[in-house]
Amino acid sequence: MASEADKGAEEVQKALIDDDEDIVNPWDVVSSSAKGVDYSKLIKRFGSTEIDKELMDRMVKLTGKPTHHFLRRGIFFSHRDMHQILDLVEKKKGFYLYTGRGPSSESMHLGHLIPFIFTKWLQDTFDVPLVIQMTDDEKFLWKDLTIEETNKLAHENAKDIIACGFDKDKTFIFSDVEYISESTEFYKMMCKIQKLVTFNQVKGIFGFTDSDSIGKISFPAIQATPSFSSAFPQIFNGKKDVPCLIPCAIDQDPYFRMTRDVAPRLGLLKPALLHSTFFPALQGAHGKMSASDPNSSIFLTDSDEQIKTKINKYAFSGGKPTEEEHRKYGGNCDIDVSYQYLTFFMEDDDKLADIKSRYSSGKMLTGELKQELTNVLQKLVGEHRERRLNVTDDIVNEYMKSRKLKFEY
Amino acid sequence: MASEADKGAEEVQKALIDDDEDIVNPWDVVSSSAKGVDYSKLIKRFGSTEIDKELMDRMVKLTGKPTHHFLRRGIFFSHRDMHQILDLVEKKKGFYLYTGRGPSSESMHLGHLIPFIFTKWLQDTFDVPLVIQMTDDEKFLWKDLTIEETNKLAHENAKDIIACGFDKDKTFIFSDVEYISESTEFYKMMCKIQKLVTFNQVKGIFGFTDSDSIGKISFPAIQATPSFSSAFPQIFNGKKDVPCLIPCAIDQDPYFRMTRDVAPRLGLLKPALLHSTFFPALQGAHGKMSASDPNSSIFLTDSDEQIKTKINKYAFSGGKPTEEEHRKYGGNCDIDVSYQYLTFFMEDDDKLADIKSRYSSGKMLTGELKQELTNVLQKLVGEHRERRLNVTDDIVNEYMKSRKLKFEY
Repeated sequence: MASEADKGAEEVQKALIDDDEDIVNPWDVVSSSAKGVDYSKLIKRFGSTEIDKELMDRMVKLTGKPTHHFLRRGIFFSHRDMHQILDLVEKKKGFYLYTGRGPSSESMHLGHLIPFIFTKWLQDTFDVPLVIQMTDDEKFLWKDLTIEETNKLAHENAKDIIACGFDKDKTFIFSDVEYISESTEFYKMMCKIQKLVTFNQVKGIFGFTDSDSIGKISFPAIQATPSFSSAFPQIFNGKKDVPCLIPCAIDQDPYFRMTRDVAPRLGLLKPALLHSTFFPALQGAHGKMSASDPNSSIFLTDSDEQIKTKINKYAFSGGKPTEEEHRKYGGNCDIDVSYQYLTFFMEDDDKLADIKSRYSSGKMLTGELKQELTNVLQKLVGEHRERRLNVTDDIVNEYMKSRKLKFEY
Repeated sequence: MASEADKGAEEVQKALIDDDEDIVNPWDVVSSSAKGVDYSKLIKRFGSTEIDKELMDRMVKLTGKPTHHFLRRGIFFSHRDMHQILDLVEKKKGFYLYTGRGPSSESMHLGHLIPFIFTKWLQDTFDVPLVIQMTDDEKFLWKDLTIEETNKLAHENAKDIIACGFDKDKTFIFSDVEYISESTEFYKMMCKIQKLVTFNQVKGIFGFTDSDSIGKISFPAIQATPSFSSAFPQIFNGKKDVPCLIPCAIDQDPYFRMTRDVAPRLGLLKPALLHSTFFPALQGAHGKMSASDPNSSIFLTDSDEQIKTKINKYAFSGGKPTEEEHRKYGGNCDIDVSYQYLTFFMEDDDKLADIKSRYSSGKMLTGELKQELTNVLQKLVGEHRERRLNVTDDIVNEYMKSRKLKFEY
C-alpha cells in the first residue's frame, strides 16, 4: 500500500504535468479555473478527509462552543485524524497546536492572517498550548535575503501574530535560527528526521531537483520537527508524547505527509491536521495572495484609504459590464473576490446571505458590494493596526522566551 | 577553469570506475597495491601541492623548531596554501587550527591518533588556538547508533584527545549536537554554506545518491562550518576573519575542497590544509585501519599483552617465508606493516635507518622487527593510557565549555 507521502508525491507529480489539475505545493498554487482550486479533487489527491457536518457537530458537542465560520463556510475544509484529537478531548486529555510562518516580508497580508485567526479560536475553544515556528532559516534559503534580515523579519512578523490575541501563558513563538541554536532536543529531533528521509522522497514530495541547495533539500525536516513535543522539553515540561494538531493552509500538507510518514518509524504519534483553502488574490482566485506583488494583497499595515483604493481598483468583480445588464442578470458570487473576502471576514451569516442574494439577483451593484467589504476590512485592519502598536519588543521577547507553557496533560 | 571542488569530483568519479586508481573518500580508502595508496598520483588528482623541502625549511626558519618526523618522512605529504599561513607567521599575525573526529566507537586506535599528535605539535610550534569538532551528528546519520550514543562517544573520545596534551587555554573541543544547539552564529554559518551548495555538487564530490538521507546530503556543510572563525564568536572574541589551517588525513579533503569553493562566495578566507597519508591496517596497506574490525587495529585501550599478540599474529610481514631465504634476500620494508608503523612512532631517524638497513639486508628477522615495534607501542600506548586515566569528566567539560581562547591576532 502506498504511504501518504508516496501518494502525495505521485499526485503532485501528476498535477505538475496535467493541465487539468491545479498545482498546489508550498511554493506554487496555480489554478486554471476562475473559481480557483478544486478542493474536493485536492482532498482525493492528497488523501485527506473532508470536514463534514458530523465532525463539526462533534466539536460543538464536546466544547459547548459554536462552530467557527471558517468551518461552517468550508474555509477550513479538510483534515487528517481530527476525530482522534476529539477522542482525546472526550477523555479530558490534552494536545497542543502547532502552526507557523515564513517571514519573508515586513508586512503580512490578510491571507497570512487566516491560519492565525483560526488557531487563536482553536486555542480558546480547546484551551490548549500552541507553538508557532518562524522559519527564518527557510526564507533565507529560498529568498534573496540575508539570514540576519529574515531573523529580523521573524521578530517583526511576531508582532502581527501576537496582535491576533494569543494567550501569552500558553503560546511559544520561536525563530528557527534562534531556537535550533538554543535547544539540543530540537536539533536532535531534526537529525532523527533527516536520517529517515531520503533525497528520493523529498524529490517526490516537493519536486526538488539536483540543482537545489542542500539547505532546501534538508529543510523539510526542520518544518516537521515541531510536530513532536519531545523537541520542546522546556515548553512541555518534559512531556514526550503530547499529541499535536496543525492548522495550516493545504499547500503546507506535503511537509506533514512527510512528517506523518516518519512519525511511526520514530515511535512517535502522527500529528493531526486541519487544512484551509487559499485566500485569493485581489485579481481573482487563480492563485493565492502574494506578498511580493503589493497590488495583489491588502496588507495589515495598509491605511483606510489604501484599502478602499485597492478594493475599488483591483478586486476582481463577478458583476456585469453595465448596470443595466447587472440589474437584469445579477453578479456571480463564485468568482467575485469582494464577496469571497466577505466569506472570510463577515461573521454574520444572515447578513452575508442577504448580500449574496441581493448581489446574485442584481439588486446590489458591484460598487455597493465593494463598499461593504471596504467597511469590514477598514474595521478589521484598523483594529489590528491598533493592537499591533501595543506589541512592544519586550512583549515579543516574552512570547519568544523558552519557558514552560501553562497546560494540563 | 574547473574549480577545486569540480576537479575533485571528476577525479573521484574517475577513481571509482578506474581499476588502476585508488579509491579515497571520507568513507572508503581502497588500494589495489600492497604498497598502499599512490600518494603522488593522489596529489595530482586532488589538485593539492606536495610538501617539499623548501616548505619544511621555511617552517624551521620561521619557528626555530625542528621539523616533525611526520613531515620529514612524508606522513604529512600534501598541502593547500600552507605558504600563505607561513606568510602570516612571518608578519607575526595569527591563525587557528581546526581538526576533528567522528565518534563512532568508544576506543580510538593508533590511526586516529595521527592527526592529533601532529596537531598538538602544530599548536606548540606555532602557539595558536585550536578547535576540535566531534561530529556526533554525522556518526548518528551514518551508523546504526542513536544520537544519544554518539553524543556520549564524543565525550569518551574527547578524553583520548585531551590525553594527547593539548593546551587547555588554547583548545576548544565541541560536539556538533551540543554546540549547534548553543551557538546561533554556528547555525547561521551552516545555513549560509547549505544555501551555496547544490545536491549536484555533493553528488559529484562525495558520491551521494538519491537514496541517501537528507541528513547525509546536508552534513558536509556542518564539517565545513568550523573553517570560518565567525562561527565561533565567543571562542575568538568576535574576530571574524582569523585564517584557518586544517591538519587532516587526505580522505577528508573532499569536505574542504567544497569549503574552499564556497569561501570566496561568502567573502571569507579559504582554509589552508595539511594532508596526511593513511595509517595502514595491521593486515597491510590496502586500506586504512578500521575501528569496526578489532583485529585490524591496535586500540589505545589495548593491554601490553594484546599489543604484543596483535603485532605477532596480524602485522603483515615483508619478510621471506624461511629464515634462510630472509637472510639471503632480506625483507621488504615497503610492504612490511611493522616497519611502516615504526616510521610513524619511532622518532629517532638514525635508529629507524639502522632497522631498515638491517631488515632489508636480512640481518634482522621479522620476529626482531616485531619486537622493536612491540616495545615502541607498549610504551606509547601505556603512557597514553596513563594520561587518559587522569582525564576526568570535569576536565572534559572544561575543554568543551564555550569560552574565549587565549590567543593573539
